[in-house]
Amino acid sequence: MTPALMPLAAEAPQINEAATAFMLVASSMVLLMTPALAFFYGGMNRSKSVLNMMMMSFGALAAVGIVYVLWGYSMSFGNLQDATSDVGGIFANPFHLFGLSALTDASGAARLIDPFGVGVWIPEYVYVGFQLTFAVITVALISGAIADRVKFGTWMVFSVVWVTIVYFPLAHMVWGGGFLSSSANGLSAKLFGVTDGLASVIPIDFAGGTVVHINAGAAGLALAILAGKRLGFGKVAMRPHNLPLVMIGAGLLWFGWFGFNAGSELAADGVASKVWLNTTVATCAAAAGWLIVEKLRDGHATSLGAASGVVAGLVAITPACGALTPVTSIILGVVAGGLSAVAVGLKYKLGYDDSLDVVGVHLVAGLWGTIGAGLLATGTGLFLGGGWQQTALQVIIALISVVWSLVLTFAIGLALKVTLGWRISEDAESEGIDQVVHAETGYELGGFPASAGRSAAARPVATASQVEGANA
Amino acid sequence: MTPALMPLAAEAPQINEAATAFMLVASSMVLLMTPALAFFYGGMNRSKSVLNMMMMSFGALAAVGIVYVLWGYSMSFGNLQDATSDVGGIFANPFHLFGLSALTDASGAARLIDPFGVGVWIPEYVYVGFQLTFAVITVALISGAIADRVKFGTWMVFSVVWVTIVYFPLAHMVWGGGFLSSSANGLSAKLFGVTDGLASVIPIDFAGGTVVHINAGAAGLALAILAGKRLGFGKVAMRPHNLPLVMIGAGLLWFGWFGFNAGSELAADGVASKVWLNTTVATCAAAAGWLIVEKLRDGHATSLGAASGVVAGLVAITPACGALTPVTSIILGVVAGGLSAVAVGLKYKLGYDDSLDVVGVHLVAGLWGTIGAGLLATGTGLFLGGGWQQTALQVIIALISVVWSLVLTFAIGLALKVTLGWRISEDAESEGIDQVVHAETGYELGGFPASAGRSAAARPVATASQVEGANA
Amino acid sequence: MTPALMPLAAEAPQINEAATAFMLVASSMVLLMTPALAFFYGGMNRSKSVLNMMMMSFGALAAVGIVYVLWGYSMSFGNLQDATSDVGGIFANPFHLFGLSALTDASGAARLIDPFGVGVWIPEYVYVGFQLTFAVITVALISGAIADRVKFGTWMVFSVVWVTIVYFPLAHMVWGGGFLSSSANGLSAKLFGVTDGLASVIPIDFAGGTVVHINAGAAGLALAILAGKRLGFGKVAMRPHNLPLVMIGAGLLWFGWFGFNAGSELAADGVASKVWLNTTVATCAAAAGWLIVEKLRDGHATSLGAASGVVAGLVAITPACGALTPVTSIILGVVAGGLSAVAVGLKYKLGYDDSLDVVGVHLVAGLWGTIGAGLLATGTGLFLGGGWQQTALQVIIALISVVWSLVLTFAIGLALKVTLGWRISEDAESEGIDQVVHAETGYELGGFPASAGRSAAARPVATASQVEGANA
Repeated sequence: MTPALMPLAAEAPQINEAATAFMLVASSMVLLMTPALAFFYGGMNRSKSVLNMMMMSFGALAAVGIVYVLWGYSMSFGNLQDATSDVGGIFANPFHLFGLSALTDASGAARLIDPFGVGVWIPEYVYVGFQLTFAVITVALISGAIADRVKFGTWMVFSVVWVTIVYFPLAHMVWGGGFLSSSANGLSAKLFGVTDGLASVIPIDFAGGTVVHINAGAAGLALAILAGKRLGFGKVAMRPHNLPLVMIGAGLLWFGWFGFNAGSELAADGVASKVWLNTTVATCAAAAGWLIVEKLRDGHATSLGAASGVVAGLVAITPACGALTPVTSIILGVVAGGLSAVAVGLKYKLGYDDSLDVVGVHLVAGLWGTIGAGLLATGTGLFLGGGWQQTALQVIIALISVVWSLVLTFAIGLALKVTLGWRISEDAESEGIDQVVHAETGYELGGFPASAGRSAAARPVATASQVEGANA
Repeated sequence: MTPALMPLAAEAPQINEAATAFMLVASSMVLLMTPALAFFYGGMNRSKSVLNMMMMSFGALAAVGIVYVLWGYSMSFGNLQDATSDVGGIFANPFHLFGLSALTDASGAARLIDPFGVGVWIPEYVYVGFQLTFAVITVALISGAIADRVKFGTWMVFSVVWVTIVYFPLAHMVWGGGFLSSSANGLSAKLFGVTDGLASVIPIDFAGGTVVHINAGAAGLALAILAGKRLGFGKVAMRPHNLPLVMIGAGLLWFGWFGFNAGSELAADGVASKVWLNTTVATCAAAAGWLIVEKLRDGHATSLGAASGVVAGLVAITPACGALTPVTSIILGVVAGGLSAVAVGLKYKLGYDDSLDVVGVHLVAGLWGTIGAGLLATGTGLFLGGGWQQTALQVIIALISVVWSLVLTFAIGLALKVTLGWRISEDAESEGIDQVVHAETGYELGGFPASAGRSAAARPVATASQVEGANA
Repeated sequence: MTPALMPLAAEAPQINEAATAFMLVASSMVLLMTPALAFFYGGMNRSKSVLNMMMMSFGALAAVGIVYVLWGYSMSFGNLQDATSDVGGIFANPFHLFGLSALTDASGAARLIDPFGVGVWIPEYVYVGFQLTFAVITVALISGAIADRVKFGTWMVFSVVWVTIVYFPLAHMVWGGGFLSSSANGLSAKLFGVTDGLASVIPIDFAGGTVVHINAGAAGLALAILAGKRLGFGKVAMRPHNLPLVMIGAGLLWFGWFGFNAGSELAADGVASKVWLNTTVATCAAAAGWLIVEKLRDGHATSLGAASGVVAGLVAITPACGALTPVTSIILGVVAGGLSAVAVGLKYKLGYDDSLDVVGVHLVAGLWGTIGAGLLATGTGLFLGGGWQQTALQVIIALISVVWSLVLTFAIGLALKVTLGWRISEDAESEGIDQVVHAETGYELGGFPASAGRSAAARPVATASQVEGANA
């Protein structure tokens, strides 16, 4: 996705109904990714914290969804169709389209948009919806780094602040015609010159290697350091409590990711079709890569490895999916899987508790995918006769994204640490965050509750937790 | 959805392939909602009745699917394209298109339909399929009110009778050009006059506030009263046995609901796009609303509350999604979440055992969404300068739907009570309906079966329950 | 799907964007079916082997996905657009489009294809993607026949060899203009003559009765015999450990199957719409049929029966969905459900351990659907005035597919048996294949692990199995 600022259409544009149908479905698929992530993460946790983990995703969905409509879209893309200047290529006016009622024109018809200037007009509402789902899942991704141990209220505040200060501007910079885009005012144009009104070397981030994965991964690292380790980290076993649930999450993430990647073409065309196939084979290759590393290193190929490899492959192909061939996608994928399989061990060596490997999977595979696109891009890639510029540019945008996210997230996280605080009490963490914070337990299986004793006593006469108040 | 009777096309219509693609996918998404509901409801039950709960959804799917093809579509929409009069605006001839072979014309081509008369022609088969999925899930929704305790055979008979007597007519009245539609022969036209051949005040029920949610909610109330309380209701804890399963259901319901709401536009256009966004933000707001009420009232925000808030928001925005802006959708949603969070406690006060809160969520949020559309509709809403008529009309159609469903369901339920009977024996209910009625248990986890003892003895040498007979 | 060899287009074809949108989504839905199958199968297993079962699906997905891009598409469909002869109507040149870079033309645009020669052009990449998902799930289906007991490495090798030798040629024969297609060089043309350049009697296999279900079912039978029985088969109870997981699988399979069947039309049109509806009602009827047989035979309708009936219905309607009416679909479906409900008991009588009933469901319902299409096809079916030829042809292609798969699979399986070996050790099988082969257990629920003792000791300090190596 490398949109440019759009001139107002000379004549009334016609809606592309096929593209609209595709984007409506693609947006639905990407929205499903956040519940899917909740299952993927939730199953990896211990049973005493599965609900809290899922609530971090669902909570982010609720909060970011509202915020996106109010000011998020305006900050990221509010200047795409209107003659509104942005602030230094960093973000647009948050109040310009506040609430988005302006996307219905005077006659009551929905305004159209053609974000890439290629003559494919879709209702701006569906473009908003599609972008909304990206903001939501990026925030939710971060939660895996701080599983089991943080205050739900602090997380909810963080979600709103982080998406506003860190995500919306980065989306604007990369996809909204800002500093990291192909705009003639952007960084690439400054570094490598301008051709036909766009940067001569077009930054490659088709569907969110920088904006989504590097961004979430670096933020996860910052928060994992700030929040500190779980009790017993590195000393006691903290094994996934429900691997079928992890697999359900991985399966639905893959499905949704087709909307994410192919949908980022904003049209049902040849590129979207190539993206679909590249996404699939890269993911297959990454799962294979991860399992091979495991088998060679540990003697066992695990289902957690398969699920993690799937996600690593999807992450890596995200920025690159429009620029590769099926064969280079396989190469990118197998490296992504192998690399992340090794990288998830780093946290033990370096001593930060990135609980569910947001850094090892999203940051590492996101970096690899973004930079690998520079190496392997058809036409412009370093290994394919394209010179060094593309790769250099990819390294630059990747590093800027890392620094942007790391520094700002650390600042936000620190501010929350000294005000609201991040950690729940040690007692609460030992007993289980589900029981203490949410007054629930994940499972009540026959006579063998996951967390026996207290739960039965705590709620003597109600069917469901929400009716407690009514009984009080 | 406010269709009018269609004149026969003057010239041969052309298929809108983009709309057809969209509706094929939307129908698939709505069909998925019934299994999703099975998970949502199943997880909320105790582990000894999860299978029966899911079977009530799958059973309704099987029965209603067949019935819909045989006479359901004819009763609801059989007069849309053909010069067949309906019976007092209540239902059309059940035998007119019986079996639906007539939807293939003499040349073997599939007949097209343009239900809203706007020039968007889709194969009538996909319109049938889309509407079929609505009938199915409406029946399945009711089952949550009578969890754990009713005979499976009675439920299956009820499904067929209820959908025929209660659902098909109401669908005809609201969407098939009948008594509650914008037809010049309908109620609104009689009350508020006619403009250009349609009612001057158009009833608002975009995707099923009356036909689906009020209808199912009121039916659930009737059956909960008729079936009586579960053993121990209000005395012993009946907590959800598997909250991750509830969340899986909620996530898939949300995904499918995009097909439900945006698909109700029957085209991939600006309205569908606005509907998509309104559906999303209202749902986010409702989840937030429910969690806020819980937190203030009980001190804890629960995952069951998040899942329930999601569903309450989806219910409330269903009738209103085409008539609101994103901001009024947020308002509608947050009220829906808060209102339902309070309403689910009513059953303890009033003493009916609506086990999984079909009344509290579907009836209450369905009423709020239908009436709230009258308050907040852009252009015609009471709070937006549109006068009192729209709101009055919304209250009227909502109340008629409540009475229609309550009275007829009570009559059907009573007839079944005195013939087949509703309740299983107390012993069976204590032991668990899964084991007794379906000869299965939900889980066999290692050495700790959910229902030990009997199950192991009951099936000594077979892998799966269906092979029992073969071994006998 | 009865494609013919395509002439090169006289003028530059135009992309059909609506069809492309539909196929992008349909492909995504079919890809989801393989994870869905993993859940369906995984839940039916005992808890000590759920992960291995799921890994057989995910492993097949990874391996077949890569292989399909490298040589699979070339072998099956590489001659559709290019003047490349196939080998005796059996398979095309595996190296012709190796890696698929040739699907992007010299200008960088994606090549289009119109597989049925009806003027609906879609990017060939999406046709590849769609067909890839079929190859993947066919392999994964086989795994249910040999649950709990085979070496993961042998399975992975089998996946690659089998898909190459058995699947790719059969797909070519049926859908790639080969020996079993309507080609003027095919079997039907030889038997019944040629009309207008195509066989006078067109073989009916709309979406894969032969290529997918008979093929997988017969292969499952061969492998079940070769691999031998599980320890305790027919002596101890081997009940499904997680029926909600089975239902999740069945629900998602149904959803994905709409992509499978309706997507096989390769266009969003009237046929796809009829296919959608036929798929739904046949499936409803099959679930009803299975439950009725169970109730009459065993006294209980089970949730496993409902889920299995759903799959049997989907299998049977797969070849026939384009040739029937909704009413004949109901007939086909109810017979499919009843027939498979009886057939799953055969394994006990005949003494092969087809663990999860791949034979009883896929082979039997696949045969019935393929032959039943000959009986019930509108216009050409035996019971509908069409003469005996269609039915005879359907029997012939079904039997050829059975023999093709049975013989070749047995040969491949035997070769692997004497080289790599199929079975894990008896000790490993007793302890559980998850723990021994994958070093994981499916569940760690509170203090009650599914497989206590060893697991806790085996991994003392790591969160997730993949970090073991890093700690070592």
